[in-house]
Amino acid sequence: MNLYDYVARVEDYPKEGIIFRDITPLMGDGKASHYATQQIVDYAKDLGAEIVVGPEARGFIIGCPVAYALEIGFAPVRKPGKLPRETVDYEYDLEYGTDTLTIHKDAIQPGQKVVVVDDLLATGGTIDATIHLIQKLGGEVVGCAFIIELEELDGKSKLHGHDYMSLIKF
Amino acid sequence: MNLYDYVARVEDYPKEGIIFRDITPLMGDGKASHYATQQIVDYAKDLGAEIVVGPEARGFIIGCPVAYALEIGFAPVRKPGKLPRETVDYEYDLEYGTDTLTIHKDAIQPGQKVVVVDDLLATGGTIDATIHLIQKLGGEVVGCAFIIELEELDGKSKLHGHDYMSLIKF
Repeated sequence: MNLYDYVARVEDYPKEGIIFRDITPLMGDGKASHYATQQIVDYAKDLGAEIVVGPEARGFIIGCPVAYALEIGFAPVRKPGKLPRETVDYEYDLEYGTDTLTIHKDAIQPGQKVVVVDDLLATGGTIDATIHLIQKLGGEVVGCAFIIELEELDGKSKLHGHDYMSLIKF
Repeated sequence: MNLYDYVARVEDYPKEGIIFRDITPLMGDGKASHYATQQIVDYAKDLGAEIVVGPEARGFIIGCPVAYALEIGFAPVRKPGKLPRETVDYEYDLEYGTDTLTIHKDAIQPGQKVVVVDDLLATGGTIDATIHLIQKLGGEVVGCAFIIELEELDGKSKLHGHDYMSLIKF
């Protein structure tokens, strides 16, 4: 199955000059999305993952089926104000200004083996922040998995040397 | 398994006087979330669902594993500006002001059997808008499934008479 066939190329989104890679056609096709998810399931299983962490919102789309398939937990990473109980936060730099991501303080147990799942590895800012949050809670990142990797943006340099996989490279 | 044990009660969130029911403890427990999800999988399967639709972001957390388990597609309903290609939109009233939800125009085929999945049935505004969007695209809503139902808010009156299930009632 050629997963590239299920990624839409959208020019000038979210702003002019950007080519956005849209995985909603992949998600809309039951066979293709199952095939893609299964590869991440196998990857996470081989690493002995005990919990999946995914940043909102597209990280939920991929990460939750992986957690379901392995019968392990899922912990969401969200923007400030979206998680109702006590959180730890991590602020990171954007091109202009800063952004913050949060995770519930009880989301991960110390020493728990974590696989991070997101739809896209671009510049790596989101995943870098997510790894920091997991480490603040004492979790052990055993790997990271992405549907799409934009190789020229070199997001893999932000993975703190952790193992990773991606299914579709541009 | 008593699913009530996995829902956190958070007072005064998102604002004073509100009791928020938080399913992150359920999602964080692999056995409990698998058990809960499986009941929705069985429900959707019995209805012959051909695609799952879920509103952002917690609808993704439940809906995507259901789609994965049945090897059917998933279509996200999102806030304006979050879907990169051509959408149909639906504006609905809030207590103060209005809100809008969107879905990609090609997300559902006419006649396709749709199960709508979300974490929570409260006043029903989100689910009402989601059903309108599905109907605009010619989809046939065969059922709706929720982890939690806040019965006193009577969200079921907004389901257009469609069949529904909920796992935990408050």
